[in-house]
Amino acid sequence: MSISHRDAGTRLTVDLNSDLGEGFGVWTLGDDDALLEVVTSANVACGFHAGDPSIMRRVCERAAKQGVSVGAQVSYRDLAGFGRRAMDVDATTLADDVLYQLGALAAFCNAAGTAVKYLKPHGALYHRSVRDDTQARAVVAAVTRFNPALPVLGLAGSALLGCAAEAGLPTITEAFVDRAYLPSGELIPRGEPGAVLDDPNIIASRSVQLVLDSMVTASDGTAIAVNADSLCVHGDTPGAVEIARTVRRALEQAGVTIAAFA
Amino acid sequence: MSISHRDAGTRLTVDLNSDLGEGFGVWTLGDDDALLEVVTSANVACGFHAGDPSIMRRVCERAAKQGVSVGAQVSYRDLAGFGRRAMDVDATTLADDVLYQLGALAAFCNAAGTAVKYLKPHGALYHRSVRDDTQARAVVAAVTRFNPALPVLGLAGSALLGCAAEAGLPTITEAFVDRAYLPSGELIPRGEPGAVLDDPNIIASRSVQLVLDSMVTASDGTAIAVNADSLCVHGDTPGAVEIARTVRRALEQAGVTIAAFA
Amino acid sequence: MSISHRDAGTRLTVDLNSDLGEGFGVWTLGDDDALLEVVTSANVACGFHAGDPSIMRRVCERAAKQGVSVGAQVSYRDLAGFGRRAMDVDATTLADDVLYQLGALAAFCNAAGTAVKYLKPHGALYHRSVRDDTQARAVVAAVTRFNPALPVLGLAGSALLGCAAEAGLPTITEAFVDRAYLPSGELIPRGEPGAVLDDPNIIASRSVQLVLDSMVTASDGTAIAVNADSLCVHGDTPGAVEIARTVRRALEQAGVTIAAFA
Amino acid sequence: MSISHRDAGTRLTVDLNSDLGEGFGVWTLGDDDALLEVVTSANVACGFHAGDPSIMRRVCERAAKQGVSVGAQVSYRDLAGFGRRAMDVDATTLADDVLYQLGALAAFCNAAGTAVKYLKPHGALYHRSVRDDTQARAVVAAVTRFNPALPVLGLAGSALLGCAAEAGLPTITEAFVDRAYLPSGELIPRGEPGAVLDDPNIIASRSVQLVLDSMVTASDGTAIAVNADSLCVHGDTPGAVEIARTVRRALEQAGVTIAAFA
Repeated sequence: MSISHRDAGTRLTVDLNSDLGEGFGVWTLGDDDALLEVVTSANVACGFHAGDPSIMRRVCERAAKQGVSVGAQVSYRDLAGFGRRAMDVDATTLADDVLYQLGALAAFCNAAGTAVKYLKPHGALYHRSVRDDTQARAVVAAVTRFNPALPVLGLAGSALLGCAAEAGLPTITEAFVDRAYLPSGELIPRGEPGAVLDDPNIIASRSVQLVLDSMVTASDGTAIAVNADSLCVHGDTPGAVEIARTVRRALEQAGVTIAAFA
Repeated sequence: MSISHRDAGTRLTVDLNSDLGEGFGVWTLGDDDALLEVVTSANVACGFHAGDPSIMRRVCERAAKQGVSVGAQVSYRDLAGFGRRAMDVDATTLADDVLYQLGALAAFCNAAGTAVKYLKPHGALYHRSVRDDTQARAVVAAVTRFNPALPVLGLAGSALLGCAAEAGLPTITEAFVDRAYLPSGELIPRGEPGAVLDDPNIIASRSVQLVLDSMVTASDGTAIAVNADSLCVHGDTPGAVEIARTVRRALEQAGVTIAAFA
Repeated sequence: MSISHRDAGTRLTVDLNSDLGEGFGVWTLGDDDALLEVVTSANVACGFHAGDPSIMRRVCERAAKQGVSVGAQVSYRDLAGFGRRAMDVDATTLADDVLYQLGALAAFCNAAGTAVKYLKPHGALYHRSVRDDTQARAVVAAVTRFNPALPVLGLAGSALLGCAAEAGLPTITEAFVDRAYLPSGELIPRGEPGAVLDDPNIIASRSVQLVLDSMVTASDGTAIAVNADSLCVHGDTPGAVEIARTVRRALEQAGVTIAAFA
Repeated sequence: MSISHRDAGTRLTVDLNSDLGEGFGVWTLGDDDALLEVVTSANVACGFHAGDPSIMRRVCERAAKQGVSVGAQVSYRDLAGFGRRAMDVDATTLADDVLYQLGALAAFCNAAGTAVKYLKPHGALYHRSVRDDTQARAVVAAVTRFNPALPVLGLAGSALLGCAAEAGLPTITEAFVDRAYLPSGELIPRGEPGAVLDDPNIIASRSVQLVLDSMVTASDGTAIAVNADSLCVHGDTPGAVEIARTVRRALEQAGVTIAAFA
């Protein structure tokens, strides 16, 4: 079951999600406070790739106050690698690791008067669960044990969303506003030239195109269909906040309502 | 508010608690399964001094199946030192660290069909919160945010139980069946000669004395008053399981009911 | 360059290596002291999958005193998974991680009056560097920077030993006395039935066959050629010490000299 | 034995030291490259409070290239608290932890064609070893085992430098150019108003006064004697690099030679 944000009439709605709370101890990453004024869904790091209890509390409190949905940004246990390194974690351990992170975040959400509203895997776990059924199923098993009605945010067509749907979990699809797409619909791998866009106006107009037309222009100029309930804006690159604000402004000017899916 | 286990008549009730789930990864510590057949309350490590998500899940599942209460055995973040080293953690960080652990354990309890029934600090945090009002209050603040009706298990007369009572939390007092007491009522510090008892029969008869007479014989032979809702049996020493079984048997033969307080 | 232990005459020499120092904090694994009386080369964990500084010091001191060679048992940074999970660590990071571990161990060796005598990767890094040239080269790069004359202990025919030889490092081949071999010469994967042998007498006679005949009987009964400078005995399984002693005794009775290669 | 930097004539020499390599994984802290062009001694984090192997390698390589001395900035094992929380680590464990860090850093120094030139404790360990003889002796024991001629950098009059001198280690005293002093010669605790200075010109003139007159103006306006072989400039505050540059320029204009002590 994919949640549709298309209203009956001409008015469209989309969610904006971003990775937040990704500092650790004395170290900071991105501008959480500024992004919380732009996005409608906060993917909060849960301590395995980033995030410590105090950061989690602060982001949850502020998100709750501003009406931003909090999601669990769960990861492999890999602080040194920021969860960006694929790991052969067996399914049982992975499910337990995910449930641990969900529970820890829930405590801060509950204390802030809100709740964990969805789950989105981070980094290497996100990428691996696009194609790896075993790991995707392990993530879904943890979600089901935690809350069998919790939405899973991910890539359209991914193993993760497939397994989630099979398990009866709501699924939310996302697109990346600052990433270049191949004609196949896949992202150009980070690190390759042109993979990441940085011009706020181009990114903003692609965002509008994504929502109004359910399309994006691929790297070869062709228009490809991309159906996204949520747009992911990044918070840890230079100019990230300015890009996010420009995207939001452009969407609003195009008549799109920005609202959390959860 | 201290929960009393004294029934109106002659019949007495006591809880038996033990530290469980204190392995990590490939490493094991103690015999969790054997102890879960003896105790009524399991202080489950939450990942900061010991315990990993898979161990937490297994202990919670088994405890739930056997009707053993699960409590959060929270600790400083110190895996290398097993949480046994006092740390000057500021109150805000400590409260957040404790809430994180409570939430993580809650996820496994809930998935196993039960709930976190109480909190007991581990190691250096236990000892420090006996006298340190700031750290005691930080622990209590976390408990209150998590569940304002959650009992706190600790030493009678400790700052921890004092702060907990002030905050309106139920308090549970415990005594140590295998530790020698000073005439002052304090424990002989671990490491000093005679601090830890190892004769199962002596330990068992002290346990019975503790429950029936609310007394224990101190190191100088005098009898001192000790009021305990729960008796702590250890799981990580040689012969631990045999001692725990002997204690339980002796209590039952003395007509004492062994039952969880929570 | 493979170091040969075949003397001119009939007398043969072999090294016995084992993983040691694999506890962490309060947790122990295997019986280091007992194994140090049996083996001639100690693969000492360096803190990334197991081992802490105090354990490293104790094993190095004892090994030095008993004339056992100390080697660096380097690993991925994965304490929770005991280094048994393959990780996509990029070559630069991996080389730096390995050099860090080599340096740390060297400090304890030097303080004990000895030196790091060789390197052997642990767990998933061991298995991955059998076939993955990139990771194998990263390990070799670290060794070369540390000591361009340091031997590398590994599987005959592995990418690791190939890269090491190319870089001019001495290479030492090992065989596993308690593992079943496929006719291809590969090990039956751990976890499959019959993969790990546990009868001390069978293991001992295979050890003698390995040294005297450079052969081992594969799972289908055929004899396959295995050329090993060192035999690996395990220390963390039940009966491990007894097996190691039986192997050593059988080799000595067969006229084989047990001596460190380094 | 305190190393004197006073030449026979009018020309004076002082060392400038700064904490470097204090990022971890994706997280950065301070501008290492800019500071390496200003200071003569780099206190390099060794992985226990900050610093990972790749950061250590990069700082060591760059420092070696630019002729900056590398020292081991050793810490308690406390990544989450950045080593700023006092810990009751027993002497044996502390000595082993320090030796581990020294060895790891040595590997990167050696690979870069240099060597560990001195040790300076970080954060809570620095402060504790000012007065705690047991921890001070543990640090000194590790240094002695590593290299019995390695200088220790610390506070004049500290237990650390006292123990180091007793053990025959060279001692180097330091002063803090951006910290306010009490009339007693102690620093005003960080966190109190006025504890940290931020005006580059005031800091620079205090630096010159410290070197030329061996004096600093305390918070009550009195001049107090401070004898420092090295001046510590910070790298992790806003404007840190500009302050460091201003200090260096002012010292050079006053005829002071900036040179590493080691």
